[in-house]
Amino acid sequence: MLRAGFFQFRPVFGKINHNLAKVSNALKNVHGALIVLPELPFTGYYFQSREELQMMAEEVPNSSTIASLIALCKENSLHIVTGFAEKGKDRLFNSALLIGPQGVIHTYRKLHLFDKEKIWFDAGDIPLQTQTVLGIKIGMMVCFDWIYPEVTRVLTLQGADIICHPSNLVLSYCQATMISRCIENNIFTITANRFGTDKRPHGEVRFTGKSQIVAPKGKLIYRAPVQQEKLYLTEIDVALAREKKITEVNDIITDRRPGFYGQVCKKT
Amino acid sequence: MLRAGFFQFRPVFGKINHNLAKVSNALKNVHGALIVLPELPFTGYYFQSREELQMMAEEVPNSSTIASLIALCKENSLHIVTGFAEKGKDRLFNSALLIGPQGVIHTYRKLHLFDKEKIWFDAGDIPLQTQTVLGIKIGMMVCFDWIYPEVTRVLTLQGADIICHPSNLVLSYCQATMISRCIENNIFTITANRFGTDKRPHGEVRFTGKSQIVAPKGKLIYRAPVQQEKLYLTEIDVALAREKKITEVNDIITDRRPGFYGQVCKKT
Repeated sequence: MLRAGFFQFRPVFGKINHNLAKVSNALKNVHGALIVLPELPFTGYYFQSREELQMMAEEVPNSSTIASLIALCKENSLHIVTGFAEKGKDRLFNSALLIGPQGVIHTYRKLHLFDKEKIWFDAGDIPLQTQTVLGIKIGMMVCFDWIYPEVTRVLTLQGADIICHPSNLVLSYCQATMISRCIENNIFTITANRFGTDKRPHGEVRFTGKSQIVAPKGKLIYRAPVQQEKLYLTEIDVALAREKKITEVNDIITDRRPGFYGQVCKKT
Repeated sequence: MLRAGFFQFRPVFGKINHNLAKVSNALKNVHGALIVLPELPFTGYYFQSREELQMMAEEVPNSSTIASLIALCKENSLHIVTGFAEKGKDRLFNSALLIGPQGVIHTYRKLHLFDKEKIWFDAGDIPLQTQTVLGIKIGMMVCFDWIYPEVTRVLTLQGADIICHPSNLVLSYCQATMISRCIENNIFTITANRFGTDKRPHGEVRFTGKSQIVAPKGKLIYRAPVQQEKLYLTEIDVALAREKKITEVNDIITDRRPGFYGQVCKKT
């Protein structure tokens, strides 16, 4: 059994230390769990320009934000999956980090950028990979990746038991589709969304909450309210994600017919 | 605009002529439309054995059932997508046929067999293909194919505007997932399910109705009741399926990153 959950909250744009303190405070009494945070939870989302993002983005792992999260993981025996504005060499990525007591375990760089993110960020350049933590295989994806079934599929084929999904959702389609992802892959997913509005001089963006945890067969374990801070934790039986049979003779993974799927992988 | 719909009904097991008359009668006043029928609507579903199926299956196009359907298409300027128990050379397929006034336009053989279908049928051996009818690109899949996002994806990449989906559903997961398929591919889907029970000496199987038509962005146009005969027709604006942009800078198809999807197509 894995203790896992999410923290849905309202980051304040540009107030990295404030947002970090908010997270640290929320998790101070949580021990021995996997926690998923929203996309870009420390910087906020609605940047004015690539230049503005550049000033706020940090390197992995040379970042005071990451150092604080590692300290929190050590103190409370946590693993955290969090969105992160990552500064690479001349490049900027909308990333998700898997962090544990020993440090940053893996960085995922968002493959499918949404709307103005294409101005601010560079598209991800690292293959999808799962990481094994305490015997559990964890996959990561970020927000708009949800609309591409290939993302959850590749992670499932790599053995993902649970996919952690930091998000800053503005549309309403994602939550129901993540239930389909859990049906078609028989995995757990944790979508950690933010709520509130980034009000900036150039406009504003409102986020839609409803963070959720879904189990294999598409069973919705919990969905948070729209505009409400929420730390939610539950016990996950990872064995449920490893049994891919849905009838005595149907294993949804080995029954696949990849010989007929060629176009899905064809570069255009 | 395309006039399209489905006929949900209760086939009687083994009574091919009775079931054919039922369909013909339902469509006698329908003109100039694309109609989707359930999976195996003429034979029924719950075979006792492969041998029993073999006695009922027919060749394509040398079949009196197909001849009647072609005559109906001619008479009423229809196109019909129907499930069909297909007898090939020494093999049996759970097929879908696209039939028009000129004859059988295409045969699709179900790629993903469900449960005891693995005893009765051989798995499909023909690549997924779309067909152009009256300027509209039509894709076909059968029932359990719904759980494999690769099927609708390949058909979408071939330009499918509308996917016709003859079904004999027994589980309750499909309808919601087909909405996700329409969101992730921005296409129309018509799922034609049957209702009623195949009561046989060796047991029985109950089917779950709720045939539906879904539009791009996952908009549910109509869903039928569970246990009720229903002919449903609507006007479909195919142009909606050809606009793949969901923001000014996001086209959900060209934004795909196939270079990162390789495992989806890898034969194991």
